[in-house]
Amino acid sequence: MAEDGTATKPRVTGGGVADGGGLLHGGDLDGARAAFPEAPEPWVDLSTGINPWPYPLPPVPPQAWTRLPGRAEEAALRTAAAACYGAPSAELVAAASGSQALIQLLPRLRPPGRVAVVEPTYAEHARCWRLAGHEVRGVDGADRAGAPAVDIPASDVLVLVNPNNPDGRLLPPERLLHLAQAQAARGGWLVVDEAFADMEPEQSVVRFAGRPGLVVLRSFGKFFGLAGLRLGIALAPAGLAAALRDAVGPWAVSGPGLSIATAALGDGDWIAGTRGRLDEAMARLRRLLSGAGLTVVGGTALFCLVEDRRAPGLYRALGEAGILVRRFEGRPDWLRFGLPGPEEAWQRLSVALDSRGAWEQGGDKVGTVQPSKKSAS
Amino acid sequence: MAEDGTATKPRVTGGGVADGGGLLHGGDLDGARAAFPEAPEPWVDLSTGINPWPYPLPPVPPQAWTRLPGRAEEAALRTAAAACYGAPSAELVAAASGSQALIQLLPRLRPPGRVAVVEPTYAEHARCWRLAGHEVRGVDGADRAGAPAVDIPASDVLVLVNPNNPDGRLLPPERLLHLAQAQAARGGWLVVDEAFADMEPEQSVVRFAGRPGLVVLRSFGKFFGLAGLRLGIALAPAGLAAALRDAVGPWAVSGPGLSIATAALGDGDWIAGTRGRLDEAMARLRRLLSGAGLTVVGGTALFCLVEDRRAPGLYRALGEAGILVRRFEGRPDWLRFGLPGPEEAWQRLSVALDSRGAWEQGGDKVGTVQPSKKSAS
Repeated sequence: MAEDGTATKPRVTGGGVADGGGLLHGGDLDGARAAFPEAPEPWVDLSTGINPWPYPLPPVPPQAWTRLPGRAEEAALRTAAAACYGAPSAELVAAASGSQALIQLLPRLRPPGRVAVVEPTYAEHARCWRLAGHEVRGVDGADRAGAPAVDIPASDVLVLVNPNNPDGRLLPPERLLHLAQAQAARGGWLVVDEAFADMEPEQSVVRFAGRPGLVVLRSFGKFFGLAGLRLGIALAPAGLAAALRDAVGPWAVSGPGLSIATAALGDGDWIAGTRGRLDEAMARLRRLLSGAGLTVVGGTALFCLVEDRRAPGLYRALGEAGILVRRFEGRPDWLRFGLPGPEEAWQRLSVALDSRGAWEQGGDKVGTVQPSKKSAS
Repeated sequence: MAEDGTATKPRVTGGGVADGGGLLHGGDLDGARAAFPEAPEPWVDLSTGINPWPYPLPPVPPQAWTRLPGRAEEAALRTAAAACYGAPSAELVAAASGSQALIQLLPRLRPPGRVAVVEPTYAEHARCWRLAGHEVRGVDGADRAGAPAVDIPASDVLVLVNPNNPDGRLLPPERLLHLAQAQAARGGWLVVDEAFADMEPEQSVVRFAGRPGLVVLRSFGKFFGLAGLRLGIALAPAGLAAALRDAVGPWAVSGPGLSIATAALGDGDWIAGTRGRLDEAMARLRRLLSGAGLTVVGGTALFCLVEDRRAPGLYRALGEAGILVRRFEGRPDWLRFGLPGPEEAWQRLSVALDSRGAWEQGGDKVGTVQPSKKSAS
């Protein structure tokens, strides 16, 4: 895929990767069990983009559970996040109980205005800006994002995910800085959701945090494999970071969450080792999918995107084998695969892909699993 | 103290128990260490209303950390909360990462209007309604709340804490139901913050949850002694509860938090035993304070309020002995004492109270510890 994403030409209209009734998040094993009651247990959940080899939990001091998190604990977390992600200062950092909370809060820190979301992408962005009263429209990522900044229609806020979910489209830092500058010139923001940027720190714009108009979001749980801990980080100019901290309110992140994340963000050896491990695992997954005759059109080290007209049949065949992948209501020809963890999960995926008879007849009809609002992303 | 609180006649003007610069929360050990650098370590923190004997942590399944919390886990928590608190249905329950988050959210679910807060009380209520654009005024709890409902001036929202913090003033359920009915009749709400109601379940209005206009808040961390876990519960008519869940957003409470709280809320034996233990401990604390010549004017089983003109001197003497209690900028004659936990903490408090020479000369000047926004409540 080209760096500007033109190779994938994704196009999902009407609010991004969503369906009419609710957002189609990954991780809905309950829904999958209901749809495939005969599937073997345990399920192999490849529907999320979460590292299957989590950061080993350090001991948590009992006071982290019993006391309200103090200013010192929160300051330590912000310092560790700034250092790990490469931000100039902990003053530019705001923490919340998940990046979802930040995605919900940001739209309330501006008066209603015009918002452009580069699509297709994680649909919560468009949904939350719209809910807060902004006028949201999608900008086609394939056609527009690669073009000069002046081509992106004037909006008060421009939102993009980089690298993008689900196609992995990646805009280089210099491109993003141009966009941020253009947004700042009109008193606006560029929001860069770097939920999947941990693998490629040189592509992150966090080191430029503090520049006017630039807002960066990071997700702790995906790369560190601790999605249940609930921690999201925003990096923004100091005034906006302070406003975000106020809007989040005191004690939003749990004491154990602060304690564990502060240790994890400071563990350079684990981070470096994990980057290598995930790279290898993703190369293996791509080989497995290609070997089954599937075309991988994009992704990151935590997920990859398959485009194939047989995708609905493949989704069903995998479901019957107890393997859940991510599909997209607006794009029945897409399936997103996360990384299997245990060797047994790899083997089950391999066997299911090998049983081509079960899915090669797949048509264009999307299966019947109901979308859900409350399952994993 | 009379049930309607008339015995205490507290009166704090200008936004409740706060100071000009920021809210004066408890738990600010960092600030205390800075103000009393010679104090012995470890500090005895009596400035919060948190049970010092926490619920023993059950084993947490690893997936609670690694996966996003699922719908089943959240539903289990809501069911356990409804059962423990005595609500008619889990549909009436919304959970957030701390009751502070709910206090921040509620004001955004109504158009700006007139809000009355029965004072003095936990100052975050008035602050958050005001921040969201509502017109807030304090209603004197001593003069007004004991009078018939028609005497409370017409407001779209009436907020009270029951039992109240810091004076323990308690309105009986029938009184609250009248108020809720009056609020509902004008399309308004009665918000009852039951953060300290776990000790007296018969005084709670949770069993009436679902009635129009009645919104009840519960705090998990105080009674269960796990304030760092971050869990607050709202109980409201089904439509409002659903709106609150939407406003909180998905995955706000951590996976381990859901897992531990679901177990704790269902542990009737521990809950009953803890009620007895806290009652005994509070009786001991009141005896200790009375024995030192101090007047306890109110409280709950988790804190008690001393009213004495020597309070500033006592605050300083306790600080020099490494014991932190809660004071109130608008009421220099008040100090709130939480429960000591370990026997050593009781002994240190006893010794400090016995050294009357150190504090009996105390004047009316409030000490110099700076208030902080981010420390414990």
